[in-house]
Amino acid sequence: MAQAIQIGKIATLLAMLDDEESRMFEAAFSQVSFCQGKVGSMNTQKVISAVETAVKRHQLIEEDVYRETHALYHAILEALEGVTRGRLAIGEMMRTVGLRFAVVRGKPYKEANEGEWIAVAFYGTIGAPVKGLEHEAIGLGINHI
Amino acid sequence: MAQAIQIGKIATLLAMLDDEESRMFEAAFSQVSFCQGKVGSMNTQKVISAVETAVKRHQLIEEDVYRETHALYHAILEALEGVTRGRLAIGEMMRTVGLRFAVVRGKPYKEANEGEWIAVAFYGTIGAPVKGLEHEAIGLGINHI
Amino acid sequence: MAQAIQIGKIATLLAMLDDEESRMFEAAFSQVSFCQGKVGSMNTQKVISAVETAVKRHQLIEEDVYRETHALYHAILEALEGVTRGRLAIGEMMRTVGLRFAVVRGKPYKEANEGEWIAVAFYGTIGAPVKGLEHEAIGLGINHI
Amino acid sequence: MAQAIQIGKIATLLAMLDDEESRMFEAAFSQVSFCQGKVGSMNTQKVISAVETAVKRHQLIEEDVYRETHALYHAILEALEGVTRGRLAIGEMMRTVGLRFAVVRGKPYKEANEGEWIAVAFYGTIGAPVKGLEHEAIGLGINHI
Amino acid sequence: MAQAIQIGKIATLLAMLDDEESRMFEAAFSQVSFCQGKVGSMNTQKVISAVETAVKRHQLIEEDVYRETHALYHAILEALEGVTRGRLAIGEMMRTVGLRFAVVRGKPYKEANEGEWIAVAFYGTIGAPVKGLEHEAIGLGINHI
Amino acid sequence: MAQAIQIGKIATLLAMLDDEESRMFEAAFSQVSFCQGKVGSMNTQKVISAVETAVKRHQLIEEDVYRETHALYHAILEALEGVTRGRLAIGEMMRTVGLRFAVVRGKPYKEANEGEWIAVAFYGTIGAPVKGLEHEAIGLGINHI
Repeated sequence: MAQAIQIGKIATLLAMLDDEESRMFEAAFSQVSFCQGKVGSMNTQKVISAVETAVKRHQLIEEDVYRETHALYHAILEALEGVTRGRLAIGEMMRTVGLRFAVVRGKPYKEANEGEWIAVAFYGTIGAPVKGLEHEAIGLGINHI
Repeated sequence: MAQAIQIGKIATLLAMLDDEESRMFEAAFSQVSFCQGKVGSMNTQKVISAVETAVKRHQLIEEDVYRETHALYHAILEALEGVTRGRLAIGEMMRTVGLRFAVVRGKPYKEANEGEWIAVAFYGTIGAPVKGLEHEAIGLGINHI
Repeated sequence: MAQAIQIGKIATLLAMLDDEESRMFEAAFSQVSFCQGKVGSMNTQKVISAVETAVKRHQLIEEDVYRETHALYHAILEALEGVTRGRLAIGEMMRTVGLRFAVVRGKPYKEANEGEWIAVAFYGTIGAPVKGLEHEAIGLGINHI
Repeated sequence: MAQAIQIGKIATLLAMLDDEESRMFEAAFSQVSFCQGKVGSMNTQKVISAVETAVKRHQLIEEDVYRETHALYHAILEALEGVTRGRLAIGEMMRTVGLRFAVVRGKPYKEANEGEWIAVAFYGTIGAPVKGLEHEAIGLGINHI
Repeated sequence: MAQAIQIGKIATLLAMLDDEESRMFEAAFSQVSFCQGKVGSMNTQKVISAVETAVKRHQLIEEDVYRETHALYHAILEALEGVTRGRLAIGEMMRTVGLRFAVVRGKPYKEANEGEWIAVAFYGTIGAPVKGLEHEAIGLGINHI
Repeated sequence: MAQAIQIGKIATLLAMLDDEESRMFEAAFSQVSFCQGKVGSMNTQKVISAVETAVKRHQLIEEDVYRETHALYHAILEALEGVTRGRLAIGEMMRTVGLRFAVVRGKPYKEANEGEWIAVAFYGTIGAPVKGLEHEAIGLGINHI
C-alpha cells in the first residue's frame, strides 16, 4: 500500500513556495487537483470559511454532498491544529494569523480501492496583532473523501 | 521587523525534500545552522529524544545551558502538535510515526536584538502499526533561543 | 458499591428517545428527578445557559447554593466534551448544534452515604451551519452533588 | 438531506441496553450492519484494539483497505473523547474503564451519494482502579467511510 | 456568599513555603484540616497515587465513599493541569516533576449549606530528566466534597 | 544549575498575598524586577491584554522586541492554563474570572549564561457570572527571555 502520490507534501509546497520555487514541482502538481488561497484574520471561523469557499469555487468537492464537506472540514481543523499548536483558537487568545493555504485532492495510494483523499495545508505567520510581532507556522490535515 | 530568513520554511523543506529537490534551496540552507535526522516509533519519548540527541551531537545548542534546552524542548512539542493534531500521543493511541526531522538555528529577523531562534520540523507518516496503513503528517515549532 | 440506579443511562435515554420509545423505560425514569429541554445554537454559552435555566426552572438544584451550581456546571462541560469530541467549541469552529438534553438527579449507589449525583446528557446533531450537513452527537457528564 | 437512519442512536442503544430492552428496537437494528463487544482495561491501546478486532472479525470493514481503517480509527477516538471527557487517557491518569461497545455501518442519509457512514458507541463505567469507585460514561464517534 | 476561608491560598502556601515562612500563616492553617507530602516522578499515576495515599493516611477523606474519592480525584487532575500547562502528561513527554503538595479540607463559604470543599495544591519543578534542567511549576484544583 | 532565585514562587506570592503578608517576603521581592495588576473579565483577550499592558507600562520587557513579547505571551498562556484547568476559555464557557496578577523578571539560576527568565502568576476566583458563585484559581507560567 505504498504511497504513489504525496498529497500532503504537494499541498505544503503549494502553500509555502513562491512562483519561481514552485516551477520545479510542476510535474508533481499536475498529478492532482488543487486550489490555493490566502487569509489573514484573528477569527477561526473566517479561516475555515476562506478554505471552504475556495474549495467550492474550484469545485474540488461537491458542495451539497455532506460526506465531502465533512471530510474537508476535519482536514481543515487538523491543519489548524498544526498552526495553533495545541490550543485551537486565534483571536480569543489575542493572536492573529496571515496564512496561505492549498487544498489537494488526489489518489495517494496505488490500490484503486483506496480512492481519493484530501490534503489541506497552511503556511504563514502567527503572532501578536501588531505587524512583525509574529513567527512562521504550518499545518497539514489529511482525510479520506 | 520583517523576516529576513524564513527558518520555519527552511526546516520544513529540509525535513520534506529529497536530495535532488533540496539542491534548489542550497542558498537558503547556507544562511542557517541545521541538522537532520530520522525516527520511527510508537513512543513519544523516543521521538523527542531523537531530536534532542541529533541537536546535541551537531552542537546546535549548548547542552548544559537550560535556557537552550528549554527553547528546543518547547519547539519540539509544538512541532509534535502538528504531527499528532490535537492529541499529543502516539503509541498510547495505537498509532505509530515514521518521521524525518530538521532543526534550524538562525536569525529570522533583520533587527539584531531579535537574536537567534530555533525551528523544528517533522515530515513523514502517521498511522496504524501496520505497514501502509498510514498517511502523511507535518509539524513545525518555533521558539526564541 | 454496586450501582442501584443508572442515572447516566436514564439521562441518555431521556435525551435520545421519542415519546413512544420512552414509555418502556417509565419505571426507571420514576426512580429519579429529571428535566428535559432543547437547544440549537452555534454559541457554547447559550447551550450551557439553556441547561442551567431548565434545571433551575424545574428546581432540580438549589439555585443560590454554589456547590450545586458547581456540580451541575462541570457535568454540563463534561457532556459537551462528548458532543464536541476534543475541541470544546462550536461556533468558533464554524459548526452548529441542535440538541435535546436531559438532567437527572438521583442516588445511583446503594450506600446511603454516597448521596445524590447529577447526570447531564445531550443528544442531537452537530455540523456545518447549513441544514442537513450534520451528523449525530452525544455527551454525558456525571458529578456528585 | 434528512437522516433516514440514526446510526448514532442505534449504536448507543446497542451498547447501552440489555437484551430485553433491545427487543423493542429490533426493527431499527435490522436496517444496519453492526457488531458488539466488551472491554475492561486501564490501557487505551487495548480499548482501541478490542473495537478494531471485533469490527474485523465481523467483517464490518475491509481490513486491508486503509481508508476504511482510517474512518474507523477516527470514529473510535471521537467516541473515546466522550468517555474520557477532555483528557484522552485512562491508566496514565490512574483510572480504568469497563465498557460495552457497538459499531454500526449504514446509510444515514436519504441521498444515495452520501453513501455509508460508521458509528462507534461506548457505554459503561470509568473510575478508580477499585471495584465500585466508578460512574457511568458514554461516547459516540461518527465518520464517513 | 463571600469566602470566609481561602482554602486554595492555604493549600498553595502549605505546598510552597518552608517551615519558617509558614509560621506567619499558622492562624489560617488552623482553620482547616490538611495534609502535606512530596513526590518526584516521571509517572502521572505515581503523582496521583502519592496524593491519594497521603490523604487517606491522614483520613482527610472517607476512603470507601466514592463521592469523596471522586471529588479528590478531579481536584488532583485540575491541579496537575496547572503543573503541566495544557498537556496532561509527564514522562510520556520526556519530562519529570519534583513536587511538594498539600491537600486542604474546609468550609470556604460563610453559608452553612455550602458545606465542605477540598483544595489540592502542587509546587515544585518540572523539566528534563536531568538535574537542574527544570523550572518551577504550580497547580491548584478545588472541588466541593 | 541550582535555582538561586525562585521567580515562580515570588510571582505567586506577589499575586496572592495582601500588603501585610507581603512584608515578610520583601527581601526576596527586592531581588527581582516585577509588576502587579488586577483584571476581572469573561474575555480571555482582556486578561492577556491587561498583563501585557502592565508589563509594558512598567518597562519589564522591551515592547518592540518580538522575542521578549513572545516569551511573555507564552508565559501568560501557560499561567492561564492553570487558571482554566484544561480548557483555555472563559466567557465562551459561561464563566468569569477576577484575578490579581504579578510578572517577575529575574535570574533564577546561578550560572550567568542562563540569563533572564520571566514568571507570570495569576491568583483570584473563577466561576459563574454571578457574584459569589466562584472558587479560587491559580496559574503560573515561566519562560526564558
